[in-house]
Amino acid sequence: MKSKTSHCKIVDCTVRDGGLVNNWDFSIEFVQYLYNSLNEAGVDYMEIGYKNSPKLLKGADSAGPWRFLNDEFLRKVIPNKGNTKLSALVDVGRVDEADVLPRSESMLDLIRVACYIQDVDKALELIRMFHERGYETTLNIMALSNVMENQLLEAFALIRESVVDVVYIVDSYGSLKPNDMSYLVDKFKEHLPNKRLGVHTHNNMQLAFANTLVAAEKGVELLDASVYGMGRAAGNCNTELLVTSLSNTKYSVRPVLDMIEKYMIPLREKEEWGYIIPYMITGMLDEHPRSAMALRDSEDKDKAVDFYDRLTTPEVAHARK
Amino acid sequence: MKSKTSHCKIVDCTVRDGGLVNNWDFSIEFVQYLYNSLNEAGVDYMEIGYKNSPKLLKGADSAGPWRFLNDEFLRKVIPNKGNTKLSALVDVGRVDEADVLPRSESMLDLIRVACYIQDVDKALELIRMFHERGYETTLNIMALSNVMENQLLEAFALIRESVVDVVYIVDSYGSLKPNDMSYLVDKFKEHLPNKRLGVHTHNNMQLAFANTLVAAEKGVELLDASVYGMGRAAGNCNTELLVTSLSNTKYSVRPVLDMIEKYMIPLREKEEWGYIIPYMITGMLDEHPRSAMALRDSEDKDKAVDFYDRLTTPEVAHARK
Repeated sequence: MKSKTSHCKIVDCTVRDGGLVNNWDFSIEFVQYLYNSLNEAGVDYMEIGYKNSPKLLKGADSAGPWRFLNDEFLRKVIPNKGNTKLSALVDVGRVDEADVLPRSESMLDLIRVACYIQDVDKALELIRMFHERGYETTLNIMALSNVMENQLLEAFALIRESVVDVVYIVDSYGSLKPNDMSYLVDKFKEHLPNKRLGVHTHNNMQLAFANTLVAAEKGVELLDASVYGMGRAAGNCNTELLVTSLSNTKYSVRPVLDMIEKYMIPLREKEEWGYIIPYMITGMLDEHPRSAMALRDSEDKDKAVDFYDRLTTPEVAHARK
Repeated sequence: MKSKTSHCKIVDCTVRDGGLVNNWDFSIEFVQYLYNSLNEAGVDYMEIGYKNSPKLLKGADSAGPWRFLNDEFLRKVIPNKGNTKLSALVDVGRVDEADVLPRSESMLDLIRVACYIQDVDKALELIRMFHERGYETTLNIMALSNVMENQLLEAFALIRESVVDVVYIVDSYGSLKPNDMSYLVDKFKEHLPNKRLGVHTHNNMQLAFANTLVAAEKGVELLDASVYGMGRAAGNCNTELLVTSLSNTKYSVRPVLDMIEKYMIPLREKEEWGYIIPYMITGMLDEHPRSAMALRDSEDKDKAVDFYDRLTTPEVAHARK
């Protein structure tokens, strides 16, 4: 049974969110093959990296070029742009506006601004600037599961008056259940009737795809995903699942399967993401996966019970907050 | 947000369905540790294997003892039975009724009968017998996604008049979306108002847990799961996810995490199950995973595109039906 989801568009985040796994160490061939696969599959947007400024970030030297996108470089990577639009993410406080050309001179179509709830005003100021330069824009409010209602209502008031095109519901910790997602979409629709919505999920509890479907059926338009789920920690909603499931005949799964076979299966042998117990634990506890990522990077990576005990012992749990 | 699921009971199928992965090659220590973990976690039932007859099955000699449960043996395995009840599955045409003792002389509490839609009458006859011997009973109709409405309505008429306690919705191919599950639960509730319901899902499209939650929230009572998802092909809904998510304070996830750490992580190194692309493909095509299982057993196990092409080329697809 196909659901009513023909209004949806897919934003593939494999390079951008997957880069958080491998420090953006993707070859140009990988990114080109991915772009062509997504374009052939009918995927609407490819988020090809971050457009933060290396001057404003530590450890910038070691990262691959997808962390600090440069238009001249992008032009060489994607010499023949197809229907799939290009997107970049920026973080509040990490982007130098001077780096962002007018859209008419850029390969990018969409600039997305990520922030925590207390920085929504700053994010909207950046968005105003990108909007004036001709870009499509989105506001991605992270860690919504840790935001109180009054903060959210204040943010909604600012957003309603802004020029932003799309507002994202971001389940940063992979802690939302389908019921929670449904509740948040209703809330966003009620308070932001003049905005389009997007959703970005994480797979800590194997609910990334299901939560994305819930949002899609409730009218959310932009759906983030990544091929084979590649993304930080538990990863994202899988692009291959979305293209097979949305009621939109323009999508085709075969090119995505080809990308998986040729690049993602070998890559998954070297890099780790997905449903892994420590990530399930941080998801169920509704917290950032950083403690689980540190565990996976240590000799104790499979010591799930000790990890669970540490996170749930009252004095430790309090200190973390 | 916890959902209204305090009516639910968990049936852990790790040994029974997981045995389809490793030919029931579980040590007695494994099964004892699992039983104690589930009992400590508050899980309601443990399905400890099949109770088919070796006389009625090919290849019986090589299988572990959990494929042909024997009460004398079970008594040694579980010398101190706790609150977790024991269940066994039988298949129509594979069980010798003479093997099934009265419940008062057996370690088993629940006998579940699996069948395809055309054998519902035979299954109900077995169930009548097990019911008379004192057991709780369930009818597990497999491959519901391939059943036509008129067949289902005929089966409902027989079931309504039967003594069976619980009727299962079984997503054998892992092809159901949450909307499909919701539709089927409504249909079963409408036509079987005098029966309790159960659900058994598969994870081909990463929807096993989400579909189980959908069913639970609509009033389905018995929820099948397995630890770390172990089950044939893509596996099942994960027990660890259910115990953390149901609104029932009696469940505790820690003993399940302990089982995963001690036994399931090492076992997953040797045996394969879970979200694997060929299983995703059979799930999205709504068909039995046997072709994908054969592929995974061959040198071409990661050749997803060829596999997809074979299953979707019209002349081949027709021949398979």
